[in-house]
Amino acid sequence: VKIILADSAGFCFGVKRATQLAFEAAAINPNICSLGPIIHSPQVVKALEEKGVKVVDKVEDIQTREVIIRSHGITAEELDHIHSRNLNIVDATCPFVKKAQDYATLLCSEGYSVVLVGEKDHPEVQGIISYTRGETVYVVADSTEAQRLPSKTKIGIVAQTTQSFENLVQVANVCLEKSKEVRVFNTICDATSVRQEEAREIACEVDLMLVVGGFNSANTTRLAQICKDIQNRTYHVETADQIDPRWFAGVETVGITAGASTPRWIIDEVVDCVKRMGDK
Amino acid sequence: VKIILADSAGFCFGVKRATQLAFEAAAINPNICSLGPIIHSPQVVKALEEKGVKVVDKVEDIQTREVIIRSHGITAEELDHIHSRNLNIVDATCPFVKKAQDYATLLCSEGYSVVLVGEKDHPEVQGIISYTRGETVYVVADSTEAQRLPSKTKIGIVAQTTQSFENLVQVANVCLEKSKEVRVFNTICDATSVRQEEAREIACEVDLMLVVGGFNSANTTRLAQICKDIQNRTYHVETADQIDPRWFAGVETVGITAGASTPRWIIDEVVDCVKRMGDK
Repeated sequence: VKIILADSAGFCFGVKRATQLAFEAAAINPNICSLGPIIHSPQVVKALEEKGVKVVDKVEDIQTREVIIRSHGITAEELDHIHSRNLNIVDATCPFVKKAQDYATLLCSEGYSVVLVGEKDHPEVQGIISYTRGETVYVVADSTEAQRLPSKTKIGIVAQTTQSFENLVQVANVCLEKSKEVRVFNTICDATSVRQEEAREIACEVDLMLVVGGFNSANTTRLAQICKDIQNRTYHVETADQIDPRWFAGVETVGITAGASTPRWIIDEVVDCVKRMGDK
Repeated sequence: VKIILADSAGFCFGVKRATQLAFEAAAINPNICSLGPIIHSPQVVKALEEKGVKVVDKVEDIQTREVIIRSHGITAEELDHIHSRNLNIVDATCPFVKKAQDYATLLCSEGYSVVLVGEKDHPEVQGIISYTRGETVYVVADSTEAQRLPSKTKIGIVAQTTQSFENLVQVANVCLEKSKEVRVFNTICDATSVRQEEAREIACEVDLMLVVGGFNSANTTRLAQICKDIQNRTYHVETADQIDPRWFAGVETVGITAGASTPRWIIDEVVDCVKRMGDK
């Protein structure tokens, strides 16, 4: 079987940075925790746990003196709470997520009605909203939801860093119908669009497409959706052991890509597994 | 013959205001001139000339103590020149054009690369550019021209007031590919889009479409183009005497609309003429 592995598969800048910071912090002080999973990869989180990094859900549950802030950020309230408890912080927030937080805050302070293109329940989105300190932020998943927005004097737009550029553009277009001034900060991380574009190209050329990454990873799920729209034989797997040998019937070429939070070792295992199964 | 006359045909707010101001000013002081034609209607300009309003092309040609500034504005240099000559001003600049001038200036002062959606040679566009006082303004007619823009840190967009909304949106979309921050001031006058939308609807329903207005009127020319794309039997006429009886062969329904600078009396003459010819 022929394998096409995406160059852009796996860790993005922010995830790589967060993971490194966490492993380094744990090496110095194994009595440390992270508020929520550092990245959306259960396998990486498990590996960190083995080094001492406990995952806690709430600030009040923190029992260590040091806490790692996960790659997709935390809310302003959580940060306040951490500060009030005088805990040491290892800030692994992705610099691009931080930018989105800053721009949302800036837009609010300049009187814009803020529209955030993203998934309501994603922690990154929850974080971005929180930094506007109580101002209304309209979270819209797509242009259909944007259509329901009221008309506004001026609209400011930011995006969850893992959104697709097309979706941002479509929401911006709808906002132009809602307001005489629209200011867009394209806070989408290039890594996401590059990965999506490469995935599209590969999906067009193969008989079977595998997308590797956490089932709780929004960007991996979207990547799988993009591939599925092109190549119906697309499977989203978290690890190699989820690959079914029956998928390879009549398959000559297999494409593989992986989400931003998928570590190299898992991608390698998938490649090895495909080699074994595909050549049978 | 059945006639469908657009409700939105003819004078917009700014043109009505400018024409009124000019006739009023001429009634008080018939020794007055206008810098360029007040509006893009040769017939209105002629009627004003009969009241004493002379049209001059350059500030140095002004031989009166009072000058009317035309609806689509003048350049900053011309305004400076008028001030330096200590002339009285009747400012008939459309308030919406003034807004476009102000927003372009604001965007420049805040460090945006300014993209102006419009026709390079139109006096309104020349005026808007001039108020940015030497800063580069990229004038683009459409998204194809916008594609040639270089990448920029932040792009600010304004539009000639008579542009189509779709064109503005398409240019904005291209600019989103060119810059991480795009700030759009939709300076398009609603009257234009309302008129265009109504023209589209009427053009769909008729056998013959007449668009009335100055051949030097950009918005009339665009209106005719929009109708022509829908109904091939579309004719742009300036006055009733340009209507050809042969156009009515086999025609049951005639649509009529008119540009923003077309006075009521010319529209009425066209309607009368169509009634006569269409019923033969």
